Amino acid sequence: MSIYEKLQSLGLNLPPGTAPAGAFAPTVQSGNLVFVSGHIAKRDGRPWIGQLGPALSTEEGRTAARGIALDLLGTLHDALGDLNRIRRIVKAMVLVNSAPGFTEQHLVANGASELFQEVFGERGRHARSAFGAAQIPLGACVEIELVVEVEP
Amino acid sequence: MSIYEKLQSLGLNLPPGTAPAGAFAPTVQSGNLVFVSGHIAKRDGRPWIGQLGPALSTEEGRTAARGIALDLLGTLHDALGDLNRIRRIVKAMVLVNSAPGFTEQHLVANGASELFQEVFGERGRHARSAFGAAQIPLGACVEIELVVEVEP
Amino acid sequence: MSIYEKLQSLGLNLPPGTAPAGAFAPTVQSGNLVFVSGHIAKRDGRPWIGQLGPALSTEEGRTAARGIALDLLGTLHDALGDLNRIRRIVKAMVLVNSAPGFTEQHLVANGASELFQEVFGERGRHARSAFGAAQIPLGACVEIELVVEVEP
Repeated sequence: MSIYEKLQSLGLNLPPGTAPAGAFAPTVQSGNLVFVSGHIAKRDGRPWIGQLGPALSTEEGRTAARGIALDLLGTLHDALGDLNRIRRIVKAMVLVNSAPGFTEQHLVANGASELFQEVFGERGRHARSAFGAAQIPLGACVEIELVVEVEP
Repeated sequence: MSIYEKLQSLGLNLPPGTAPAGAFAPTVQSGNLVFVSGHIAKRDGRPWIGQLGPALSTEEGRTAARGIALDLLGTLHDALGDLNRIRRIVKAMVLVNSAPGFTEQHLVANGASELFQEVFGERGRHARSAFGAAQIPLGACVEIELVVEVEP
Repeated sequence: MSIYEKLQSLGLNLPPGTAPAGAFAPTVQSGNLVFVSGHIAKRDGRPWIGQLGPALSTEEGRTAARGIALDLLGTLHDALGDLNRIRRIVKAMVLVNSAPGFTEQHLVANGASELFQEVFGERGRHARSAFGAAQIPLGACVEIELVVEVEP
């Protein structure tokens, strides 16, 4: 099954690529690695603002992370022309806008990690770091940066 | 001297690899690079919880970072089968759970950096970023992510 | 035009490389990728201390980030011998020491991103993540880590 058929079978619509909010590129390829710029959480097309903790629940953060994972695939589709060229999701860095006492960044990050594995299976299993950021651009609740390996 | 003899001569016991606390892989190799997921500080087998600043001292953080470095080697041993395959410790990202006024993240990080150099010598000298995180999963005091280069 | 002529035409003086403030290397090369350690903001040769928010303005942060970008080039010149060997600025991670309500990390980061593009043109367009750190070593206001690709 192609990645696009897989997305469809999961009921997921591939969003358009995300334009960078600054003087940088959405992706840069070097060798077989593609470095994808940090993408922030969105809801209804606008930044999903707030801190995990009293304001936003772990479950909301998880939903936000899942949404970003899909946005990252939209950006990769634009960059690569074909998501089937992705050989491996290599590494994700998941930043969670965290109020002082919030310590479930790993559960928030699972929202993205699980989507990658639903879509790519074993090739979607990646290395990962998740931690609490003091803030995220525009006040967004989650930001994710990605490295993937592609076919030569 | 092999890396295992070196560890022994330093009085260090290689711990078992760390299972990921989430839907991800402990390591992913791409080309000659191995990306190791963020590992959190532990004490007596449990997360070492607390913020650097009033609660935990720089020296405690440094001990925590040294312990994580050893845990990272345990994970790499599991992934590679042989630590002698490591050609270079390439890059470490050291996150320090920091109270507002704490600014010695670099001294905390030295706990890990020095262990890598004791074990690997010149091959253990790596690029590094250290900074203060607002929080770390499970409330741990330090988290470290690593990239190493291995023999083909 | 060589990179050195370009720097001159922009009125920029290449600073000396930055010595690591800890037990690590300023850069490590693996394959064609060079990983550059996190560099902190400086003013008059000392750490530029403060948090973005009430204490430091976005414009000051942007100036700090631009200064770091130049420092990173000084370190790369030392490591590579010739900045013309840089084929691409691949990825920047921009950490902004952020007071709770500050959400313009992306505008601060533009200070560095724009300098790379002024100096390297299209080759200077990089992937990027920017976010708020709770603190930065020595209390510096901005820290930047870089990955570049060089000629074999």
